[in-house]
Amino acid sequence: MPSMPVNLGSREKIPHPPTAALDLPTIMRALGDPLRLDLVRLLARRGQRNCGELSDLLGLPSSTCSYHLRLLREAGVTRTRAEGTARIISLRRDDLEERFPGLVDVLTS
Amino acid sequence: MPSMPVNLGSREKIPHPPTAALDLPTIMRALGDPLRLDLVRLLARRGQRNCGELSDLLGLPSSTCSYHLRLLREAGVTRTRAEGTARIISLRRDDLEERFPGLVDVLTS
Repeated sequence: MPSMPVNLGSREKIPHPPTAALDLPTIMRALGDPLRLDLVRLLARRGQRNCGELSDLLGLPSSTCSYHLRLLREAGVTRTRAEGTARIISLRRDDLEERFPGLVDVLTS
Repeated sequence: MPSMPVNLGSREKIPHPPTAALDLPTIMRALGDPLRLDLVRLLARRGQRNCGELSDLLGLPSSTCSYHLRLLREAGVTRTRAEGTARIISLRRDDLEERFPGLVDVLTS
């Protein structure tokens, strides 16, 4: 029987829509919530953060934060990267700019 | 007893949020639907239209169109003006540009 890799954490596949599949109504719906908009602005200002840092900065339970970050990731607004057991979240600024020029500026100005 | 005006049509008060009250998450939520985004793009390209024209252009039942136009109006994206029994819909382009510069360009480019 072939041996399995021991550390699955860093190999875990976290799904993201490809840039070409980003869809404006879907993204608008994801941004149509004050808390998610705050998360996006925070990531735009402060760069990548892990989920715990974002929860602390916004004073939210981490489960609430995870839920909203999942919606942002599934819409293609953010990218989540596994680093061991941590999840590092970043804004897909370049992808958004490529598909919908000016959108990130509207959100953050 | 004071007499009431006979023609209420043109005096009917259709509520709209004032420009200063326009809220980005609310607007994003209103735009987070392919059909509403199509309505907005149509109004941006073709200027004001009545509900029947918009229904015809999008091939929608007028009840569906009315429903979505109400959501857009309540969010502050469009303005609805009564002209007799007709309802003339326009994009609040200047108000949106004042509060969220660049947003209309993102939607229509």
